[in-house]
Amino acid sequence: MKQIYVNQIQAGEAVDDIFVLSEKTLARKKDGGQYLTLVLNDKTGNMKGVAWDQVDMIKDNAAKGDFVRVQGTVSDYRGVLQMVVKSLETVAPETVNTMDFMATTPRNIEKMIVHLRDIAGTVQTAYLKDLLNRFFDDAQWVEKFKKAPAAKMMHHAYIGGLLEHTLSLVVLADRVAGHYSGIDRDLLMTGAILHDIGKIEEFEYAVRIDYSDAGRLVNHIVIGLEMIGKKIKEVENFPETAALLLKHLIVSHHGSREFGSPEPPKTLEALMLNYLDEIDSKINGIRDFMESQESDDNWTAYHKPMERYFFKGHLK
Amino acid sequence: MKQIYVNQIQAGEAVDDIFVLSEKTLARKKDGGQYLTLVLNDKTGNMKGVAWDQVDMIKDNAAKGDFVRVQGTVSDYRGVLQMVVKSLETVAPETVNTMDFMATTPRNIEKMIVHLRDIAGTVQTAYLKDLLNRFFDDAQWVEKFKKAPAAKMMHHAYIGGLLEHTLSLVVLADRVAGHYSGIDRDLLMTGAILHDIGKIEEFEYAVRIDYSDAGRLVNHIVIGLEMIGKKIKEVENFPETAALLLKHLIVSHHGSREFGSPEPPKTLEALMLNYLDEIDSKINGIRDFMESQESDDNWTAYHKPMERYFFKGHLK
Amino acid sequence: MKQIYVNQIQAGEAVDDIFVLSEKTLARKKDGGQYLTLVLNDKTGNMKGVAWDQVDMIKDNAAKGDFVRVQGTVSDYRGVLQMVVKSLETVAPETVNTMDFMATTPRNIEKMIVHLRDIAGTVQTAYLKDLLNRFFDDAQWVEKFKKAPAAKMMHHAYIGGLLEHTLSLVVLADRVAGHYSGIDRDLLMTGAILHDIGKIEEFEYAVRIDYSDAGRLVNHIVIGLEMIGKKIKEVENFPETAALLLKHLIVSHHGSREFGSPEPPKTLEALMLNYLDEIDSKINGIRDFMESQESDDNWTAYHKPMERYFFKGHLK
Amino acid sequence: MKQIYVNQIQAGEAVDDIFVLSEKTLARKKDGGQYLTLVLNDKTGNMKGVAWDQVDMIKDNAAKGDFVRVQGTVSDYRGVLQMVVKSLETVAPETVNTMDFMATTPRNIEKMIVHLRDIAGTVQTAYLKDLLNRFFDDAQWVEKFKKAPAAKMMHHAYIGGLLEHTLSLVVLADRVAGHYSGIDRDLLMTGAILHDIGKIEEFEYAVRIDYSDAGRLVNHIVIGLEMIGKKIKEVENFPETAALLLKHLIVSHHGSREFGSPEPPKTLEALMLNYLDEIDSKINGIRDFMESQESDDNWTAYHKPMERYFFKGHLK
Amino acid sequence: MKQIYVNQIQAGEAVDDIFVLSEKTLARKKDGGQYLTLVLNDKTGNMKGVAWDQVDMIKDNAAKGDFVRVQGTVSDYRGVLQMVVKSLETVAPETVNTMDFMATTPRNIEKMIVHLRDIAGTVQTAYLKDLLNRFFDDAQWVEKFKKAPAAKMMHHAYIGGLLEHTLSLVVLADRVAGHYSGIDRDLLMTGAILHDIGKIEEFEYAVRIDYSDAGRLVNHIVIGLEMIGKKIKEVENFPETAALLLKHLIVSHHGSREFGSPEPPKTLEALMLNYLDEIDSKINGIRDFMESQESDDNWTAYHKPMERYFFKGHLK
Amino acid sequence: MKQIYVNQIQAGEAVDDIFVLSEKTLARKKDGGQYLTLVLNDKTGNMKGVAWDQVDMIKDNAAKGDFVRVQGTVSDYRGVLQMVVKSLETVAPETVNTMDFMATTPRNIEKMIVHLRDIAGTVQTAYLKDLLNRFFDDAQWVEKFKKAPAAKMMHHAYIGGLLEHTLSLVVLADRVAGHYSGIDRDLLMTGAILHDIGKIEEFEYAVRIDYSDAGRLVNHIVIGLEMIGKKIKEVENFPETAALLLKHLIVSHHGSREFGSPEPPKTLEALMLNYLDEIDSKINGIRDFMESQESDDNWTAYHKPMERYFFKGHLK
Repeated sequence: MKQIYVNQIQAGEAVDDIFVLSEKTLARKKDGGQYLTLVLNDKTGNMKGVAWDQVDMIKDNAAKGDFVRVQGTVSDYRGVLQMVVKSLETVAPETVNTMDFMATTPRNIEKMIVHLRDIAGTVQTAYLKDLLNRFFDDAQWVEKFKKAPAAKMMHHAYIGGLLEHTLSLVVLADRVAGHYSGIDRDLLMTGAILHDIGKIEEFEYAVRIDYSDAGRLVNHIVIGLEMIGKKIKEVENFPETAALLLKHLIVSHHGSREFGSPEPPKTLEALMLNYLDEIDSKINGIRDFMESQESDDNWTAYHKPMERYFFKGHLK
Repeated sequence: MKQIYVNQIQAGEAVDDIFVLSEKTLARKKDGGQYLTLVLNDKTGNMKGVAWDQVDMIKDNAAKGDFVRVQGTVSDYRGVLQMVVKSLETVAPETVNTMDFMATTPRNIEKMIVHLRDIAGTVQTAYLKDLLNRFFDDAQWVEKFKKAPAAKMMHHAYIGGLLEHTLSLVVLADRVAGHYSGIDRDLLMTGAILHDIGKIEEFEYAVRIDYSDAGRLVNHIVIGLEMIGKKIKEVENFPETAALLLKHLIVSHHGSREFGSPEPPKTLEALMLNYLDEIDSKINGIRDFMESQESDDNWTAYHKPMERYFFKGHLK
Repeated sequence: MKQIYVNQIQAGEAVDDIFVLSEKTLARKKDGGQYLTLVLNDKTGNMKGVAWDQVDMIKDNAAKGDFVRVQGTVSDYRGVLQMVVKSLETVAPETVNTMDFMATTPRNIEKMIVHLRDIAGTVQTAYLKDLLNRFFDDAQWVEKFKKAPAAKMMHHAYIGGLLEHTLSLVVLADRVAGHYSGIDRDLLMTGAILHDIGKIEEFEYAVRIDYSDAGRLVNHIVIGLEMIGKKIKEVENFPETAALLLKHLIVSHHGSREFGSPEPPKTLEALMLNYLDEIDSKINGIRDFMESQESDDNWTAYHKPMERYFFKGHLK
Repeated sequence: MKQIYVNQIQAGEAVDDIFVLSEKTLARKKDGGQYLTLVLNDKTGNMKGVAWDQVDMIKDNAAKGDFVRVQGTVSDYRGVLQMVVKSLETVAPETVNTMDFMATTPRNIEKMIVHLRDIAGTVQTAYLKDLLNRFFDDAQWVEKFKKAPAAKMMHHAYIGGLLEHTLSLVVLADRVAGHYSGIDRDLLMTGAILHDIGKIEEFEYAVRIDYSDAGRLVNHIVIGLEMIGKKIKEVENFPETAALLLKHLIVSHHGSREFGSPEPPKTLEALMLNYLDEIDSKINGIRDFMESQESDDNWTAYHKPMERYFFKGHLK
Repeated sequence: MKQIYVNQIQAGEAVDDIFVLSEKTLARKKDGGQYLTLVLNDKTGNMKGVAWDQVDMIKDNAAKGDFVRVQGTVSDYRGVLQMVVKSLETVAPETVNTMDFMATTPRNIEKMIVHLRDIAGTVQTAYLKDLLNRFFDDAQWVEKFKKAPAAKMMHHAYIGGLLEHTLSLVVLADRVAGHYSGIDRDLLMTGAILHDIGKIEEFEYAVRIDYSDAGRLVNHIVIGLEMIGKKIKEVENFPETAALLLKHLIVSHHGSREFGSPEPPKTLEALMLNYLDEIDSKINGIRDFMESQESDDNWTAYHKPMERYFFKGHLK
Repeated sequence: MKQIYVNQIQAGEAVDDIFVLSEKTLARKKDGGQYLTLVLNDKTGNMKGVAWDQVDMIKDNAAKGDFVRVQGTVSDYRGVLQMVVKSLETVAPETVNTMDFMATTPRNIEKMIVHLRDIAGTVQTAYLKDLLNRFFDDAQWVEKFKKAPAAKMMHHAYIGGLLEHTLSLVVLADRVAGHYSGIDRDLLMTGAILHDIGKIEEFEYAVRIDYSDAGRLVNHIVIGLEMIGKKIKEVENFPETAALLLKHLIVSHHGSREFGSPEPPKTLEALMLNYLDEIDSKINGIRDFMESQESDDNWTAYHKPMERYFFKGHLK
């Protein structure tokens, strides 16, 4: 179990603890010898390291992404803390608590999954209910779904983020669904629950959050469609048009080709799902961004992805 | 009072009724004489007309946009009905029911305005409440607000459309406001109620719906800001920042410069108002478009503004 | 069997033949009675029709898209030929030669499929060869693949067009594959053969070429991925990375999100496939367009999709 | 009065002078104590500072944007000058010459305002003349108009820049106005004089140039419209159409929605004003950029906003 | 010499006059025979024609673009005048006044060329003066320059239009050149005079205005560069940098790649030329468009290229 | 001849060798004296330098871009090697091997030019053959063509790169030319050989690769057209249309205005040349980028120009 986190370490301390080895580069000394520069991570941040000795052993025994037990001392090198590493060895993933190494939703994951399943239970259409049950009864799927992040950077970019975003979106959809006639609530709710499930394979999040090969090569929309297609085949007499309309919700939920949807929304439910997804990701993303700003100013720093400053002051 | 509407007229009939003169063009006959081609409107559509006689009198006495009493007979000219006009004279607007000449919301305007005011009554912040009251207590403003359309073509493009759209948006905002912490409900609700009020001057809708000079030269965002600025000055001690944030909701509610907002949304309330406005206009517009399609096909005709076909079939 | 094609019919003729009923609209006569306007198609074009009698019977017995046997006489109505329909009854699709009703590739379909399979036979990698065999051994799939068009409008928009385009692309890929080191020929060839197979379900082409519901709701990239995913599961030990790279070729072959690919090309093979697909569709499309122009001018008419005139003159 | 400017300070010097405190950040020492890092500005640049002592007092007594009297010594820390601050106290703005702290137009402000007013005097149309007089007779407005910058970064980004840009544009408009028939000179000149007046509230420029809250939330077009609307109401019988056309000049002077105009130019005067504004801001901005380049090269550094290098060499 | 123009012809008249044959299409009669449909042009418009007899002779003897003497009678066919052609024969171009067949500048071409040359005479730099003289002394070039249009459709789209636009632009440049220091007047004036000279080969305007092959294949920027390059070689000791800077004015005068300039403006003179060209073409184009509108309305019809309505009303 | 290259120099060494002086900046010491900071280049990289003494002499005697003989000692300054320069004097370019200072194609330039000329020899059309011979017989042109780079940064950005890219493209064109009927092989091959020849003047590559004034002011398309136009005039009876079509290949080979072609491709050959050029530059550029990546990861670093990561792993 972790004794100390990166953001607690002070210059002068001796450290003996577990980190993720997130970068490892071999460098040449002036005298022709070799040394290693390292980056060590946990959920609170990262620290640079340098190993002057035992270079060969460390180089061969630990790969990028491994959990490693590191012994060393920390000094202040030109204003930045840096660990001089004495020894480094890999640690079996089973022996660590991965939550020590990645940021995690502040909300209770178990309560959220129960809440989501409760709402799923309100879907009346038999074959949609059946489909949803098959997902929630699939323990392996549930395990991943509870852990996956919703993004690498923008919003809900932490363990449990996918579940948190999905639940928020589904509650929102429930509030809005009844406001317009002509919207099939069961279809909308099912689509909302399943819209991002491809993300459980789009990301790697065993040790740190990054895109998987599948995530970059075929992306979460395609992965999600495959998952849903497989489960639909298990449901008896799932109507073909219903299958198409449900897949269409996944296909189109980014709103336009420009944002990665092969087809744009062509049903009322698909239009609605796209807008609600946009609301939930943007409002959460911007609110988090506002809260992360420490200055007293009325304005945040420049928000590059949306190309503007945000006003974080308040009406009294 | 109207006896017959354009969509009821048959070939062979003699007509003596009131229409809007929406076009009037002087043409030259082969023999060098003159004649007039006309277009006559009421809320159900329009009919071509031609006047061979009394050309000078008609030409001088009636202008585009006038209500006119027309006598003539209708014939089928190459598959299209056309009225041969015998006489035409202007009619004072006060003597006609303008609702006979423009499409009108199917919903009850009086009930809608009461409903909207009730919701406005739930705003707690004193100066916002005071501001809203000044609008609702301004009988002249209320009269226009009850009548104005929300658009010329796309959605709610009929008398009462602005009120219908505003009410729907406000109810939607009420459902959603509580879902996210950090959103100031009173500010959002006030912005939602006032976001489009410039449209009461952006359009002309005394006789037919079209843009006014002001609508084309400065548009409804600028007009609305002027109206709100004027009423804010009447409220005692309206905080300056609150005034800016409220105006910002009007300024930014189209979401980006590309869509006509001089500044994009920079507060949570402004982001939310933009999304909700988008939902309400698009869902209503597309649903109406779907319903207007008469074919048995699963698909609508091509929807040019959104560049796609929509699926209007249903899950059984 | 067809006796006469649309482009051979003259005014004054009596016709008794089979067509596709591509449009059917009920209209109201001046006297309140009903009549039907129709559009009748075969592979050479279409003709308007009108039915004054037996309206109810025709209306109920034939739907848009049906093959119908029509008896009537043809007259010249304002410069356009029009058939006055006396009787109309549906005909079982099995009893007609559908090739009479849709344009077809000028090339020999059987020879093309043999040629394509021969080239497929040059793929050496065992699991890719196995995968391709499973497609070519699937008689039902081959039947559809031989018939499908490659597009509704732009290029190869006729029966057999998908096969013709695929074969041409594959031969081109074969010529180019060896020019650059670092390109995996087997992967490129397999991707080229399979890149558009989703089109066999994207279109309806039993009677006329149009998008299917699946084509519009999820499109051919998604459909193709599903087909390939299914066949990959049948191959023993298909390597997971190979499956991802092959799917990536399908996912990315439109080159960018803007053109409908959820992810852009990220491997050399994917870059190459996108360029070759572009060459084959554009060169064929423009060459056909040039050849369709009958004027003596050096220039074609304006080509709207590519927004230019093309020079069709020649160097002597 | 300032004794020394930032760009004159040398390592080793003891400084006792007035600066603007433009940044102030509390940091944690290794031993757990606190220190402050500061940034100090005057019109020639900025200097970093650090305060190890009296942290609490400094922290509480001076806010970002204040004028402060600072005592300290300057040293070279890793190639950058840094002041070790001994004492720091706020100074009343009335006691400093703010021009010491912000860059200022090289031209004579008083002469420019007289010149501009002279040209304004050539406007003949009575109500436009009356309107302009009301601005120039408003001493408070004139004071701000003489001081405001025209931009934060791009062109005329200094005290007096708005006046300098406006005068140059107005002289240019005068040269061009007579070249095309159909242009109303009085309307064009009035629009040119008033086009950017919203900038006097869009920026803060008491101590340093930055956007104000109003500038970011509603921008200078909206602010300027409000100012003009207010003054127009004071003019007796200002024709309604003239008011709309004048406001249209403000609304549309950025040329398109993309550049922040809610409506694009729809009159000849508005087209012309947009082009002339573009010329004056771009020619001045690029000429300044060329002159700021110190190398002997024929080419400037890369100009990011316009995405090119400029040729600053000359024909002999 | 023309007796009657297209816009003067009445139904019932017998016509014997010269036109341009701008279209000629062979059609099949119901009885299998052939006939020709024609379009006949002069500077006032065009008229449809049909030839039932002498089809072979007409077909073989006259090509699209020829001047033809036509005899026939005019009738009203479904509201459109149409000439039944009895005989048609080609006429030698030398025997007609081509100005009868193409719209021409309302201004005096001879006076304009003298005026332009006078201004050219104010250029002081010896080699630029020499270059300009070589153009104005080249009688063949002057002849074409006096005749060429400035465009096919948008602005100055008539004989003499290029000269008219060039002169207007040069006078405008003269007014503006002195307003900014740092601009080389001689270079700007020379560039303004020569900027569009490639248009004398970009268009065909012997009989009607259309693009030439060269115009479509390499466009007027490339053609103009070739002309200037050739004349520069004739000038002794034309400095190389001056040649590059002058060519740059031609290359960049459309302002950006998007509008057809291979490089954007990179000198002050090039920036200025682009803006002035934009002003002269747009102000003239829109003013002509306003004047072409016959309605009493304050607004023009929709202007497609600039996507807006223009206000053509006036301040009183 | 070079003794040591930049990438071989170690801290502590004394150096006496030749470099390119690629930057030279005069700076002010704390004591008011002056010193120079320098950047020294050869084909393997660059090194910073500083001269404390002989500042005036060095400053006056060597300009940016000169070859210079430098004596000095190298030390490690904050982790970066830096040479303290004792003496520096310019060296005549004739006395150095410029290939020591710029990266060069790994392929044999002499063999490539022979290969390219052999392929040129397969062109049959007499006037095209004649034209190509005139280029290859022009020794001065050949010398530049063998040396020029194809780009400054993106692909083939080294000495000999233009020849390498041209040869690869021509071989590719040869493979593809026969695949489509309707393509004139001789025209395509001639266009492929000449498409980029303007680059021999677009870049400076005597000492280091950078854009020339001509390259930035008129770009390689315009320069290449001028070269080709000149040689065409030397060929007897070169058909005018052929000249236009050949120039069109140069004009349009970037594919669209957006990418710098004044006109887009309007012939089959031009479409094909654009696609093949795209393939050759992108496949080579990306393959080189993949190979330049040293990590073991399956993915490259982020590729900014194409906005994606590339997969550089392999199928086993």
